[in-house]
Amino acid sequence: MATTRIAIVGSGLIGCAWAVSFARGGCDVAMYDATPGVAEAAPARIREMAEEMHGVDMLLGATPEDVTGRIRVATDLADALDGVAHVQENVPERLEIKLPVWAELDALAPADAVLASSTSALLPSKFTEELKGRHRCVVAHPINPPSLIPAVEVVPAPWTDAQVVERTATLMERIGQTPIRMQREVDGFLMNRLQGALLQEAFRLVEQGIASPEDVDIGIREGLAPRWALMGPFETIDLNAPGGVRDYVTRYAGIYETMAPSQRDPADWTGPALERVEADRRAALPLDEIPQAQARRDSRLMALMQFLRGKARQ
Amino acid sequence: MATTRIAIVGSGLIGCAWAVSFARGGCDVAMYDATPGVAEAAPARIREMAEEMHGVDMLLGATPEDVTGRIRVATDLADALDGVAHVQENVPERLEIKLPVWAELDALAPADAVLASSTSALLPSKFTEELKGRHRCVVAHPINPPSLIPAVEVVPAPWTDAQVVERTATLMERIGQTPIRMQREVDGFLMNRLQGALLQEAFRLVEQGIASPEDVDIGIREGLAPRWALMGPFETIDLNAPGGVRDYVTRYAGIYETMAPSQRDPADWTGPALERVEADRRAALPLDEIPQAQARRDSRLMALMQFLRGKARQ
Repeated sequence: MATTRIAIVGSGLIGCAWAVSFARGGCDVAMYDATPGVAEAAPARIREMAEEMHGVDMLLGATPEDVTGRIRVATDLADALDGVAHVQENVPERLEIKLPVWAELDALAPADAVLASSTSALLPSKFTEELKGRHRCVVAHPINPPSLIPAVEVVPAPWTDAQVVERTATLMERIGQTPIRMQREVDGFLMNRLQGALLQEAFRLVEQGIASPEDVDIGIREGLAPRWALMGPFETIDLNAPGGVRDYVTRYAGIYETMAPSQRDPADWTGPALERVEADRRAALPLDEIPQAQARRDSRLMALMQFLRGKARQ
Repeated sequence: MATTRIAIVGSGLIGCAWAVSFARGGCDVAMYDATPGVAEAAPARIREMAEEMHGVDMLLGATPEDVTGRIRVATDLADALDGVAHVQENVPERLEIKLPVWAELDALAPADAVLASSTSALLPSKFTEELKGRHRCVVAHPINPPSLIPAVEVVPAPWTDAQVVERTATLMERIGQTPIRMQREVDGFLMNRLQGALLQEAFRLVEQGIASPEDVDIGIREGLAPRWALMGPFETIDLNAPGGVRDYVTRYAGIYETMAPSQRDPADWTGPALERVEADRRAALPLDEIPQAQARRDSRLMALMQFLRGKARQ
């Protein structure tokens, strides 16, 4: 079997993390970026990421040298797209930028290549409708960085071939991601819809003066999220009643029904609730210390993902 | 300082886990249960729990022998309540059971003892309004088992003294729990409100045929929950934009606003969505294997909590 060739279009942080994932899965990866110098800077960044991922057993048995050896910087877009089976696009989240890029991708990529976007905010129908090859266009949206977090939403436009969704999902599995096969496009896809529902209630609790932002974080961090990180919400409730999920719903749906009317109206994320969250967060972490806190988060998250892939999955 | 004395009223699984928490924190604990034999069976169960908790470094430096040595079986309710500073009630979640128990607790407990209920479903006002000592009544609702999961919601009735909330929260901190200080009672308290919001969207995604139950579990388990388990949702978004939470809301609130109208109506948890979740879960896990799956969950959760209290918190 010939090695699968991948083009990364948009070679910033997300593009580099994608490159690590594709290369650990044995793909040959060409890096391209419209901004001069960005693709050229990618290999050094990728080497550093690959070493970090190797340190937490996230290279699927590949070495950092295997990863970097499978990555090249393309001379131009046509060179990047030469002979590829899959294009992963990571340009800025603005329609006026996506539209001309996607017209070029569709014109230049091999006819049987899948064109996938990393977009989190734009429905695939918004930037693929007019393309001749729109049947081969799809969203493959990761949680950053994909080299560390497995979940990837595979989202079809109304005209996307079912086989394109399946090929993309299969490729994702091969490179160590866990695909979510969405049946159709919807605002927020799946993960931001779930996160949005949780954040609405989080802001609502603060807005109504029921609890502090830190209380909300405690309730998730030291209450609910450990089970969710092992099982997800459905498996969690399935194991929380002797007769499984049906028994759980019989026992507890009444509690959730009682609270539902007070959860209908969206909270105001920009008013006094935001002032309170901002004030409390800045008291806990001054603005100029955010970069260090992000670095600490990244190293804790790497250790946690290594743990979850190992012992806790047994 | 004299040792703090605690009464556990209702000595089943939750009562025993509470006993481990109180005893690891240095309290003397008296076990009582209205059903003959239940309190007598508690010490053996507590010994087993204490050894498990010791194995994952959750006894705050105490030994299993320290824990069991601080626990006694009371001869009757009056004996259990003798000289206590705090009563933790864990009787079944039915008002007709709670009401007479709470009348007894208020009549028999020392005048300065705090009376706390583990209820997840009943507002404290529902079973304390008529009590002479209603100012000292509060809910202290754990996620089971409290010996393993730190979060405890401290929920006042409208007539609960603020000092009673504070004393309860301080006691919780001392025994290794993390208290959530709620400003007032509300259906679902804090954690079930957050879980309810997430489950509504989870059932909605399945009901509308957008994704499978397993896809929802992947999105949380392998996407969002690892960060939430380290930080909670507010700290997560605070670190997801260079300028913190205000910057995050400026950048992304529009995405959440767009999806909010389609998240207003509660999903039907009992219709075709439940059929689908039930069918998929039973295909993944036959009903008669739930007990083994619960045992596996418990051991994975113990390992995860040890990990989270250690390395990932650094």
